[in-house]
Amino acid sequence: MPQLRKDPVLGRWVIISTERGKRPTDFAHAPEEKKGGFCPFDYGNEDKTPPEVMAYRENGSSPDSPGWQVRVVPNKFPALAIEGEVDRAGEGMYDKMNGIGAHEVIIETPDHDVSFADLPLPHIALVIKAAQQRMIDLQGDTRFRYIQLFRNRGQAAGASLEHPHSQLIALPILPKRLTEELGGSKKYYGYKERCVFCDIIAQETWTRTRVVCENEQFLTIVPFAARFPFETWILPKKHFSSFEVMGDDMRLAFAQILKESLTRINIALDDAPYNFILHTSPTGERDLKYYHWHMEIMPKLTKVAGFEWGSGFYINPTPPEEAAKYLRDVEIPREETCA
Amino acid sequence: MPQLRKDPVLGRWVIISTERGKRPTDFAHAPEEKKGGFCPFDYGNEDKTPPEVMAYRENGSSPDSPGWQVRVVPNKFPALAIEGEVDRAGEGMYDKMNGIGAHEVIIETPDHDVSFADLPLPHIALVIKAAQQRMIDLQGDTRFRYIQLFRNRGQAAGASLEHPHSQLIALPILPKRLTEELGGSKKYYGYKERCVFCDIIAQETWTRTRVVCENEQFLTIVPFAARFPFETWILPKKHFSSFEVMGDDMRLAFAQILKESLTRINIALDDAPYNFILHTSPTGERDLKYYHWHMEIMPKLTKVAGFEWGSGFYINPTPPEEAAKYLRDVEIPREETCA
Repeated sequence: MPQLRKDPVLGRWVIISTERGKRPTDFAHAPEEKKGGFCPFDYGNEDKTPPEVMAYRENGSSPDSPGWQVRVVPNKFPALAIEGEVDRAGEGMYDKMNGIGAHEVIIETPDHDVSFADLPLPHIALVIKAAQQRMIDLQGDTRFRYIQLFRNRGQAAGASLEHPHSQLIALPILPKRLTEELGGSKKYYGYKERCVFCDIIAQETWTRTRVVCENEQFLTIVPFAARFPFETWILPKKHFSSFEVMGDDMRLAFAQILKESLTRINIALDDAPYNFILHTSPTGERDLKYYHWHMEIMPKLTKVAGFEWGSGFYINPTPPEEAAKYLRDVEIPREETCA
Repeated sequence: MPQLRKDPVLGRWVIISTERGKRPTDFAHAPEEKKGGFCPFDYGNEDKTPPEVMAYRENGSSPDSPGWQVRVVPNKFPALAIEGEVDRAGEGMYDKMNGIGAHEVIIETPDHDVSFADLPLPHIALVIKAAQQRMIDLQGDTRFRYIQLFRNRGQAAGASLEHPHSQLIALPILPKRLTEELGGSKKYYGYKERCVFCDIIAQETWTRTRVVCENEQFLTIVPFAARFPFETWILPKKHFSSFEVMGDDMRLAFAQILKESLTRINIALDDAPYNFILHTSPTGERDLKYYHWHMEIMPKLTKVAGFEWGSGFYINPTPPEEAAKYLRDVEIPREETCA
C-alpha cells in the first residue's frame, strides 16, 4: 500500500511508493518505447490491460475486446491503491495516511499514431464525455476529495507510452495547488464580490493582447503571469465551477476550443511535449461562486532549474503577449477554427 | 527591463523577460556545450565575463586577471536588472513591478573539469565564504528582500555551462516557497513554541532511519515527505535562521557535510544532475525563532509530469528510508567522512 505523507512545514502531501522502491540503478536508463513495438492500448490487445472500467463501443461488442472508440482502464502501475480505508496516523511529529485512491487511464482512440488534436471533433467530445462520466462516478466514493484529470504528451512531459491517452487520479486529500487556488479566489471574491476568473476573462477580452482564440462559450489566453513560455489556459466564458457537469452543447464547444488550441500549439512549437491539467472544484462542491474551472496547457520547452524549484519563483523567457501573438498568427486548417 | 508579474489567483510573482523574447524556434535546439570548447569561466578568460564583483586571489594579482581561487561576476544574461527603482503598478486588475534584482555567478574554481564535491575542503569553505560575503553585501541594498543561492549541476538540472559554478539572485519580493515555509514554521511555533526544524532534527536523530550522515554541527537527512527520490536536506543541529552569519568553525563543518553529502549522492546516483538550493531567512531577519536555515539537494532522476505540475502533489517512487540507507551505505574515501 502506498503511503501519503505530509510535509510538516509546508503542509504538502506527497505520495510515497512503498511497494516497489526504485533503486538508484532503476533511474539510470528510463526505457524508451520502441517505435512499432508492442502497445497494450492498441486494438486487439485489450486483455493486456486490467479489465476496462467503461468504454464507448459499437453496439454488441463485449468488454475487453475490440469495437471501442474510447476505453477507460485502471492504471497497471497505479500511484495509489483502490482498496482500503483512509487511515490517518501519526509517526512522532509527522502525519501520514494510507495511499488510497484511483488511478485510471483514458485510452482516447484505438489509433496508435494519431495526435489527440487531430482526432475528429465528435471523437474529442467523446473523450471529454468519458472523463466527465468517470469523474462523476469516482465522486460517488466518499473517500475521495478531488479527481485530477491530466494528459502528458511526449517523454519530456512524462509520458511513458506514445499511444494517445490521458489519466485520472482520485485523491483522498485536496492537492496543494487547488487549495491555494480556492484560497486565492475566495479571498478575491471576499474583497470584490466577483469571481477572479470572470474578471480575468473580462479584462483579456477587452485588451485582447493575450487572447489566442475563442468561440461562443470558451476563451483561450496566455495568462498575464504565465510561468512557462507558451503556457495557455482555456476558460468557459460563463461562470461554472465544475467541469464534470457540462452538457452536450458546451462539451462540443469545449472539444472545438481544445482541438484548436492544441493544434495552434502543435504547429507553433513543432509538436513539442506538453501537459494539460484540468482545474475544477473539489468533490461535492459543484456550485462555487468564487471558483471557475479551466484547463491549463503547459508546453515543455525549458528545463526548470534550481532557482525555480527552490523559490517557487519562475523565469519566463517569452512575454505572454508575444506568445499569444505567435499562437494567434498560426495558420491552421479551416475546419479547426470556429469562424 | 524585465518585469515582475503577479498571478491574481495564487499571488505568485513571475519574472517575465521582456527584452529578448524567446521565439518558438529558439527552444528547438538548446545549444549543447562542446567538450573542450571555449569556456568564459576558465583561467585566462577573465575579460570574457562582466567585471568581477569580488574574488579571492593570490596577493598582488589584479581584478579580472588570473590568480584567483573563487571569483564572483555578474551573470552575462541576468534574469533581473540591477539598475532602477522597484516601481509597482497596476494593469487593470493585474499587479506588476520592475524586474529589479541582482544575478551573480560564483565561479567556484579555475579548474574546468573538477566536480564541486571533489574540491579540497578548505576550497569548498572558501566558496561558501564568498557566497556569504556576497549575500551580506546584497542585503545592504534596501530594494532586495531575499537573496537566493543555488547550484545547477548537469544539463537536466538546467546548467548551461559545465564549469563548476553556483548562482545568487537578489529579489525585490519574497519567493512563494519561502513565504510558505515562513508561514508554516511560524504556525508550528505558535502551536508548539518550538522550531519545527529543531523538532525534525530531534526526531530524525532519535529514529535514525532517514539519516544519511552527520558531523558535530550538521545533520543530513532524506526528509519524511521527500518530493523526489534521493532528495536530501542538510540542517545545522543548533538553531540558526540565517546562513550568511555563520562563522569560520561552522563554515568548515558545513563544507565537510556538504562535500560528504554530495559525494555520497554522486557515487550512489552515478553523477546524476542535481540542484541544491539554500533556504535562509529574508533580508533583515537574521534571528527568527521559528525559522531554521537549511540546504535542499534535489537529484534530477525523474521527469516531473502533468499530475505533479497540475496538483502540486508529488509521487516519489523511492521511500525516504530506502534512499537514506543507500546513501548511508555508499563507500566513500576516508578523508570525506568526519569520523
